[in-house]
Amino acid sequence: MKIRHQHYRTIWRDAQTVCIIDQTQLPFALVLERLSTHQQMCHAIKTMQVRGAPLIGAAAAYGIALGVQRNADDDSLHNIASLLIATRPTAVNLAWAVQRMTQQLLCLPDIQRAHAAWEFAQAIADEDVEQNHAIGQHGKLLIAEIAADSTRVINILTHCNAGWLATVDGGTALAPIYAAHDSGLNVHVWVDETRPRNQGASLTAWELAQHGVPHTVITDNAGGYLMQHGQVDMVIVGADRVTGNGDVCNKIGTYLKALAAYDQQVPFYAAVPTPTIDWQSVQGTEIEIEMRDADEVAYMQGQNEQGQVCQIRVIPHESAALNPAFDVTPARLVTGMITERGVFRPEQLQSLELSR
Amino acid sequence: MKIRHQHYRTIWRDAQTVCIIDQTQLPFALVLERLSTHQQMCHAIKTMQVRGAPLIGAAAAYGIALGVQRNADDDSLHNIASLLIATRPTAVNLAWAVQRMTQQLLCLPDIQRAHAAWEFAQAIADEDVEQNHAIGQHGKLLIAEIAADSTRVINILTHCNAGWLATVDGGTALAPIYAAHDSGLNVHVWVDETRPRNQGASLTAWELAQHGVPHTVITDNAGGYLMQHGQVDMVIVGADRVTGNGDVCNKIGTYLKALAAYDQQVPFYAAVPTPTIDWQSVQGTEIEIEMRDADEVAYMQGQNEQGQVCQIRVIPHESAALNPAFDVTPARLVTGMITERGVFRPEQLQSLELSR
Repeated sequence: MKIRHQHYRTIWRDAQTVCIIDQTQLPFALVLERLSTHQQMCHAIKTMQVRGAPLIGAAAAYGIALGVQRNADDDSLHNIASLLIATRPTAVNLAWAVQRMTQQLLCLPDIQRAHAAWEFAQAIADEDVEQNHAIGQHGKLLIAEIAADSTRVINILTHCNAGWLATVDGGTALAPIYAAHDSGLNVHVWVDETRPRNQGASLTAWELAQHGVPHTVITDNAGGYLMQHGQVDMVIVGADRVTGNGDVCNKIGTYLKALAAYDQQVPFYAAVPTPTIDWQSVQGTEIEIEMRDADEVAYMQGQNEQGQVCQIRVIPHESAALNPAFDVTPARLVTGMITERGVFRPEQLQSLELSR
Repeated sequence: MKIRHQHYRTIWRDAQTVCIIDQTQLPFALVLERLSTHQQMCHAIKTMQVRGAPLIGAAAAYGIALGVQRNADDDSLHNIASLLIATRPTAVNLAWAVQRMTQQLLCLPDIQRAHAAWEFAQAIADEDVEQNHAIGQHGKLLIAEIAADSTRVINILTHCNAGWLATVDGGTALAPIYAAHDSGLNVHVWVDETRPRNQGASLTAWELAQHGVPHTVITDNAGGYLMQHGQVDMVIVGADRVTGNGDVCNKIGTYLKALAAYDQQVPFYAAVPTPTIDWQSVQGTEIEIEMRDADEVAYMQGQNEQGQVCQIRVIPHESAALNPAFDVTPARLVTGMITERGVFRPEQLQSLELSR
């Protein structure tokens, strides 16, 4: 995607280093950081300078490359892999990328590993970009169908950040929106703030602004009102995990938007790279929901009057808070899944499994 | 209600002055302010030091008393009334209280007006307290029905602040909760943060903490998850306006909670003093929704590390925001209305109109 008219990925190799965008500083400062060691990459993942499941996968792969170029023997490789996996234990893509890298590298003699690690990491990053591009193309057709002609504004609501910043490039939920915008369709995005971590207000709004896509930030409370008043043509969200029956586990609050969309007959889509489908889980009620630190609810980050990024407390010191991170939207509320292999109704997902 | 074991109203007369709690300083500081003139009362209403429809009504009545004790002739009275009405043009209770005070005072000779104005204002405040007490008693019975025995925790979700702080005393949506708690029932309240102005996280959490009612603050996104997991026994919200058919206009986001409650078969009640029922409006789609300043979405207030209350920006400088203040929950999603005259299903409201 573009930042001030220049093309960027969220992560890229530069000689023997890896460059990232420090996402904790967004949307108020664009800070690029150069990482030279796998320890620095571990720190970047842990502190959420890089976040979003697909991006974390690529970051871990590049982290292996950084480590292996210094010490490529088996012990070092296993040690680097363990350190990277421990940074965010619940992220599926991270463990997957680290395992894939490790298995591939262990087959090679030590002397070839450094060079190969960079190639394998690059391949993981490129695969993500290709997958997202395909999701964008399939999703664009859905948007084009809604637009009777290219002058009509198509209002799309999204929740959280499943955009360019959550991936290596292109995004998942935002991929169809970028593809539609770039092809000249007149899209406008309602950006849910997405409390408690505000990924919508800070990251989604920022990346849409950089790319020049018209958008408006709303509170998480406002989407139902907008749908009641015909102001939403479709909803597209990302997914952290999709079960075999089509239940969608995604950022907390997604279920509420899906209910409103169903009630107001607004199409509700999840953008789902097929590796996100967990064929082992039959239905969403089986998914254990992560409880995150209550301080994410009690404190909020933003820019103060002096222009500094700071945190403020927003609940009384006497009060407790609870912070469930995800909820599950039952398949009955989902119009379809936009995958890199096409758009599927929830009940059609099984055909994808059979053809794996 | 109690603050640190001492009973308070949100507004009270003290000799020739009126005392208020400056709600803009909550939940981080309890600041009482003494007002001596109607101009000071206008300022307090305008800057939302006092807020909440019932409280604003009483505040305006006391404002008339403050003004009339200095100049009680017809011209002065009309002037004072105009200034007060202009403070918050959309608040129904405010105009109603000012008109009632003015009409009553105009019937009296100038010399008697100052004394009478204090009495009339006191009556308006006392009526609010009585009405809320009755709502509390009717609502308590609903809660007691759910509690099989007094040891079981009854989890009640509420949105925004329809508590003690929004009224003279007792609250509307929180009245049944206080009544149940005080009678020994084991209630626990899920407090929706209520973006953008955070009346839940700041005001509802604060007043429940002061009164010793167990509660937990959650983001507006979390209620659906909690209902899916059987963690909510009932929802009680306030209402800004209820139409003749039982549609409930309330703080933005109420509709989303009502949808989740309906989907998960959780009883959903609105606490509604009967003057809030607008018999002129047949259904909620007729209600025009106020769009408030986008800066309420773009900025957030809280306490910084130095302990000072401050505002931070939470959306990019390049992004716009939209701030619809209310939404309408259709009657089909509402289990009942808790009024001072009893609990009614939406379709039973008409019988209340006939018996007015």
